[in-house]
Amino acid sequence: MNENPTPGSGLVVHGTGPAPEAWLPAAMRTALNAAADLGEGAAVEIVVQGPAVALLTAAQGPAAQLEDLRAAGIAILACGNSLRSAGIDEGDLAAGVGTVPAAVGHLARRQWDGWAYMRI
Amino acid sequence: MNENPTPGSGLVVHGTGPAPEAWLPAAMRTALNAAADLGEGAAVEIVVQGPAVALLTAAQGPAAQLEDLRAAGIAILACGNSLRSAGIDEGDLAAGVGTVPAAVGHLARRQWDGWAYMRI
Amino acid sequence: MNENPTPGSGLVVHGTGPAPEAWLPAAMRTALNAAADLGEGAAVEIVVQGPAVALLTAAQGPAAQLEDLRAAGIAILACGNSLRSAGIDEGDLAAGVGTVPAAVGHLARRQWDGWAYMRI
Repeated sequence: MNENPTPGSGLVVHGTGPAPEAWLPAAMRTALNAAADLGEGAAVEIVVQGPAVALLTAAQGPAAQLEDLRAAGIAILACGNSLRSAGIDEGDLAAGVGTVPAAVGHLARRQWDGWAYMRI
Repeated sequence: MNENPTPGSGLVVHGTGPAPEAWLPAAMRTALNAAADLGEGAAVEIVVQGPAVALLTAAQGPAAQLEDLRAAGIAILACGNSLRSAGIDEGDLAAGVGTVPAAVGHLARRQWDGWAYMRI
Repeated sequence: MNENPTPGSGLVVHGTGPAPEAWLPAAMRTALNAAADLGEGAAVEIVVQGPAVALLTAAQGPAAQLEDLRAAGIAILACGNSLRSAGIDEGDLAAGVGTVPAAVGHLARRQWDGWAYMRI
């Protein structure tokens, strides 16, 4: 565990729940707004959990929006547990989509390190 | 960024998503419960993001509940980006409703300053 | 208020909103994943707010999942305000389900003490 949290270091945007076709684009827009508002010193990540990870494959992934995120330095990370549950290989993810082993552990550690949290 | 977070200074209640007719009154009740429970030393804010801001105009705003919030010292803040998307002028907001330029930036900065976060 | 937050001490999983039959099992799975991922040094709690508390009575409570939580050292806590609104006595709760007077106050205090927050 982190003994020296550094507040102000980042923001993690958490997307999960039903109807991801509606909230995933909103999560991406929100993250882009956040990066513009908070400036270069702040890291911004989107963590996608649950069946929504199926929208992040190369076949389904919204390539233009993923490119916008990349250009803004925003990481988009799929939950490894959710990928396994959905039967999706990491290799099937769209270019630029990363992974974390478990969304929940990542979200907790980021906050312990002083990051802010926001649920879409 | 804030170098001296002061934990325990406040709570920000974040309301967004579909069906705001259902969750906006719940957000107000929750904020009132919070103010009663946490006592005078704790600041409580409600940040409203997305199409829900249309419920905060003078024409639509639930005046009685807004008065209850004001009496309890609870700020209710509409997201400026959401107002622009909804084509609503700040001047159309009900008395007592404030604004922040971008909900996401405000939510991040509050947490970096040591405030707790809760998503309705 | 807490003057000495100890980051890394815990994670509080907040469950509220419509359709709890869908999200309550997900909250329990997520909490179990969190406990496994974060290890023994991290406390994990689930706080259930709103009409969902009706799913935590002895008559309705999913006994097998509650036993899994207990075995993993995860607390599950019903909001006292929500119990009152639903007309449920604390004595009607399933074995192993605890209570907090108000979910919102508990969630704020946990975060002021350095706990991470996650909304299901």
